[in-house]
Amino acid sequence: MTARPDSPFLAACRSEPHDVTPVWFMRQAGRSLPEYREVRGEGSINDAIANPDLATEITLQPIRRYGVDAAILYSDIVTPAHAIGFGLDVVPGVGPVVEKPFSSSDDLRRLRPLDPEADTPYVLETIDNLVAELDIPLIGFAGAPFTVASYLVEGRPSRTYHRTKTMMKATPDLWFALTDRLADLAIASLESQVAHGAEAIQLFDSWAGALSVADYERYAMPASAKVLDAIGAAGVPRIHFGVGTGELLGSMAAAGADVVGVDWRIPLDVARTRVPADRALQGNLDPAILGAPWEVVRDEVDAVLNANAGHPGHIFNLGHGVPPDTDPTVLERVVERVHAHRTTPAGAS
Amino acid sequence: MTARPDSPFLAACRSEPHDVTPVWFMRQAGRSLPEYREVRGEGSINDAIANPDLATEITLQPIRRYGVDAAILYSDIVTPAHAIGFGLDVVPGVGPVVEKPFSSSDDLRRLRPLDPEADTPYVLETIDNLVAELDIPLIGFAGAPFTVASYLVEGRPSRTYHRTKTMMKATPDLWFALTDRLADLAIASLESQVAHGAEAIQLFDSWAGALSVADYERYAMPASAKVLDAIGAAGVPRIHFGVGTGELLGSMAAAGADVVGVDWRIPLDVARTRVPADRALQGNLDPAILGAPWEVVRDEVDAVLNANAGHPGHIFNLGHGVPPDTDPTVLERVVERVHAHRTTPAGAS
Repeated sequence: MTARPDSPFLAACRSEPHDVTPVWFMRQAGRSLPEYREVRGEGSINDAIANPDLATEITLQPIRRYGVDAAILYSDIVTPAHAIGFGLDVVPGVGPVVEKPFSSSDDLRRLRPLDPEADTPYVLETIDNLVAELDIPLIGFAGAPFTVASYLVEGRPSRTYHRTKTMMKATPDLWFALTDRLADLAIASLESQVAHGAEAIQLFDSWAGALSVADYERYAMPASAKVLDAIGAAGVPRIHFGVGTGELLGSMAAAGADVVGVDWRIPLDVARTRVPADRALQGNLDPAILGAPWEVVRDEVDAVLNANAGHPGHIFNLGHGVPPDTDPTVLERVVERVHAHRTTPAGAS
Repeated sequence: MTARPDSPFLAACRSEPHDVTPVWFMRQAGRSLPEYREVRGEGSINDAIANPDLATEITLQPIRRYGVDAAILYSDIVTPAHAIGFGLDVVPGVGPVVEKPFSSSDDLRRLRPLDPEADTPYVLETIDNLVAELDIPLIGFAGAPFTVASYLVEGRPSRTYHRTKTMMKATPDLWFALTDRLADLAIASLESQVAHGAEAIQLFDSWAGALSVADYERYAMPASAKVLDAIGAAGVPRIHFGVGTGELLGSMAAAGADVVGVDWRIPLDVARTRVPADRALQGNLDPAILGAPWEVVRDEVDAVLNANAGHPGHIFNLGHGVPPDTDPTVLERVVERVHAHRTTPAGAS
């Protein structure tokens, strides 16, 4: 049993029996909420993250509105790299943009260890605030080394990862040194988040789906496994997420995940055949259909729940983040629908 | 046997024994070639396509340089929709952009049937020129209805296909009417290309990988199957291509393909298990590594050839188009390497 027997989210993370399917949404805090747009102002996302009162409020907004089963810290996967002065910004409508991309062993010096209490005190203060307020678990998170490396190496979001893939194959020693540093950065950040009260963590390897299984296992998995192993020792459930990772689900589970994220490309019953039976799945409503009439959305929600077929290890979520133009009332109805669905836990009497 | 016993490309399309692995590259004609940049000028791609002398020259440039085993017509998947006046342009660095996106049944009127001799005479003149010049097969092509529809509905390239997916699920009658018109457009275009001498065709469903298998089979496959069935009657091999379609390979074969395109995410031996044994595969070098040192590229080329394990139905290609910044000398060496590899045709003595 978990330390918090009243949390269906934590029970589902452990594939333990519980009554209601837990649900939260990636990017549940953010641009889709009018109350977010009201408080957010014009500053950069880094400024908002560095303001604990604001970050606390933004994290709480979707909890108040939706009644989801977990909160996720308002932060960014590049926050630790930003905090140690790597020189990057998150540009609205673009994503992380790096002033001077990582290209040689000289750049390793720009990746010093993270001291969370000194470098990201605002993150920890936000977590302290949240833990005092919340009666549901807070999810902490970090970017997986491959995905963060892709931003540092490409200098901006990419669809092709030319430089990243070239670096990993042409100069593997440099690549492994880079991803090992990024693993240490993620570990330091996640450990501090857990120490301050995060009750689960999600490792975002959002772009791992650009890799073949062989390349994933050789170039991305070792550093992610290092992170997940370290956090496993902290005793909180570990969610491992990426987009377009159908072929990688088994490897992503083997990297050390209690919960594997699944996007909409494969149904949960198929995903289930690709991970060990004791792992939970998180997903997998296609965010692209949230703008459709409710009947369409409802049927898709039901299809996700039915594909799960009562396995206790299911956390309902989207296959990717909430689109900025989503009508929040649709997500309210999704939460209602998921919560109205009774689970039939395997092995429950 | 094929009508052209000297073509390893056509033999491989039919999974018939032949001595050398054929190779061509998607986007082999285009921005990566200095001779292309020299002749191309500043006009829009639609202008270049509408100029048969220029389009002929551009198509021939990679044949002269690389010694590939097939030519592919210099054209665009939105050329038929452009030719009937739907109102779209191909914006450099962006892709197809539609002035007034397709959004309701009123817009069906904007998709009148294509009369290739009247609407795209320049395409047919280019093919006439090419057939007179070439001693290798010319590949004609069209966009698959789903992928073309995604441009018409979104109005521009998308990563999420919100409007497209909403239309297919919220107003399936409209969606099927749209994709049926686009199937007719593709059929008319492809039949005219074959009548003028194209010896194979490729149906580009580049973005089908955004769909689950269930959605693909319900919303995309019927219109693609209509196209492939019609062209099957014309007697030329049909290549069916998309990116990120590992889960869809069986369905894309079943839609009526002689050759199924495979991107780099799964090795050919795995892809082979997902399509019937009599289908050929095309692929699957990752274009992202073409900028790496030759030893890296060479090992990746060898890995592709080895994963094919001597099946006669293999056409070497990239998993997606040639990146614009590719050094053409690397592609020259790739062709040499592929041609130096001896096939061991199954069943050959």
